[in-house]
Amino acid sequence: MTTLIGGDWGTSNLRLFRFDAGGAVLETREAARGVLAVTDGGFEAELATLLGDWLDSGRARILLSGMIGSRQGWREAPYVACPADAAAIALQSLAVASALGEIRILPGVQVERGDGCLDVMRGEETQIFGVTMRDGGAQLVVTPGTHSKWVRVKGGRIVDFATYMTGELYALLKTHSILGRLIEGDAHDDAAFAAGVQRALDEPALSKLLFSARSEGLFGRIAPTALSAYLSGLLVGAEVQAALRDGSAGRVTVIATPQLARNYLAALALAGIDDVEVMDGAQASAAGLWQLATAIPWAM
Amino acid sequence: MTTLIGGDWGTSNLRLFRFDAGGAVLETREAARGVLAVTDGGFEAELATLLGDWLDSGRARILLSGMIGSRQGWREAPYVACPADAAAIALQSLAVASALGEIRILPGVQVERGDGCLDVMRGEETQIFGVTMRDGGAQLVVTPGTHSKWVRVKGGRIVDFATYMTGELYALLKTHSILGRLIEGDAHDDAAFAAGVQRALDEPALSKLLFSARSEGLFGRIAPTALSAYLSGLLVGAEVQAALRDGSAGRVTVIATPQLARNYLAALALAGIDDVEVMDGAQASAAGLWQLATAIPWAM
Repeated sequence: MTTLIGGDWGTSNLRLFRFDAGGAVLETREAARGVLAVTDGGFEAELATLLGDWLDSGRARILLSGMIGSRQGWREAPYVACPADAAAIALQSLAVASALGEIRILPGVQVERGDGCLDVMRGEETQIFGVTMRDGGAQLVVTPGTHSKWVRVKGGRIVDFATYMTGELYALLKTHSILGRLIEGDAHDDAAFAAGVQRALDEPALSKLLFSARSEGLFGRIAPTALSAYLSGLLVGAEVQAALRDGSAGRVTVIATPQLARNYLAALALAGIDDVEVMDGAQASAAGLWQLATAIPWAM
Repeated sequence: MTTLIGGDWGTSNLRLFRFDAGGAVLETREAARGVLAVTDGGFEAELATLLGDWLDSGRARILLSGMIGSRQGWREAPYVACPADAAAIALQSLAVASALGEIRILPGVQVERGDGCLDVMRGEETQIFGVTMRDGGAQLVVTPGTHSKWVRVKGGRIVDFATYMTGELYALLKTHSILGRLIEGDAHDDAAFAAGVQRALDEPALSKLLFSARSEGLFGRIAPTALSAYLSGLLVGAEVQAALRDGSAGRVTVIATPQLARNYLAALALAGIDDVEVMDGAQASAAGLWQLATAIPWAM
């Protein structure tokens, strides 16, 4: 019996899914063994350890996505250019010789945007195909986080996308900047978050808005315990404002944990977008891995 | 004989000017003894040390500006609200009892902008009056740096201003973010700086543009040694784009060191602004301190 195993192998984590013949996830395993944690190219050994008894039933088809296909990963799988559909991505997957089974590493996707900037993703494209499998129409998909991606999907293809450094900027500013000195804790505060979002929707100059997290704190107009939510609101609001600027949002799918999704739902509502679907990240990865696996010409 | 001594006492540095009776600077002294370096409120002792023989000729009028008037300074001098002229700022200066002479600490300036945000400055307002003394017309003054201030001046008054976290964001991103991993050194590169400025003039979404410093580097479109100039261009360009957005720039005065001024001149030229005057920071502080001193009702 040939089993399909899918893996989302990112910078910090490795998450594996074992599928049944119909694409349902039978079991999930996860470890904090991201690409940066694996030294001396020990990717095969790492994978064997986590797979364990999943291999007892024989050789498996193993499909991996994410940073495992980057220069720092197992093998570099060159980016596929936009517009990119599942077939193009599946075709550019790299076969890697292994005793564990038939392993293929998925490529990332690149775009040269209208603003002249290059942009890249690795792993998110797989989640995107987990969404489009459910909804073939035009839509925006956002994967919030350290580097939020806003992805425009149409006719089953990734046509355009942009990365926002929202999560990384939030952490940097809170930990290392003058703004952090006034911030107490990181409790969520709906009103402060909404105030930050609204300001960013009204005023696109982020490097100016950010300083207001200091001045509003200095004057006690925002409490120290609410400043981190305000800062988060400024950054998420700036992202939503820019991503929706061309006015053609359609449905927006948010791939995130419930807390993060809640923030984005609130920000999108303030921007007038109510047609929003939320999807869990692991669920999107699994669905996308299955979808892409069906497009791969497996040898065995 | 009563001597006027002016001091620009900021977070990191203390710079003193000894004036003649006509306002010319006879001598300048400087020490890395900013407000954060002085412990246990030892401001008077610190000042006495640096003043030294300047006090030999008798008691002095000593006018101090900058963070010395903040909560972390010698005495807190409450902010003056915009629109603020030299008379209002001089009147709100705080007299501090001291054996060194008649000491007054200047207040900062605050504004509640049209975008609803509060903003504050301490020390820059003094430099602004060093400029307006020379040119009474409508103009924009920028003090680039860690926290760049763009200040609108009209009829001898500070009418509006905004702070951009340009310098701090640059340092944070270069030192702590994923962008820093690809950056080699911090040499200036005219072409890369201009490319960054132009992108920011065309696209106001900074948190999106910033990621291009990674993707352009990954693909080798910008050399590792030119990436820091590109990042600087993105941040300075975003500042210039936002500051000039309302279209009423008039003359722009840049108060900065020659290298920093050179970058701002280049960015302003790309934005179509050619009526630019450059002024050294110490020169602006000295001129402003003299200007404000003449508006103060000294006791002696």
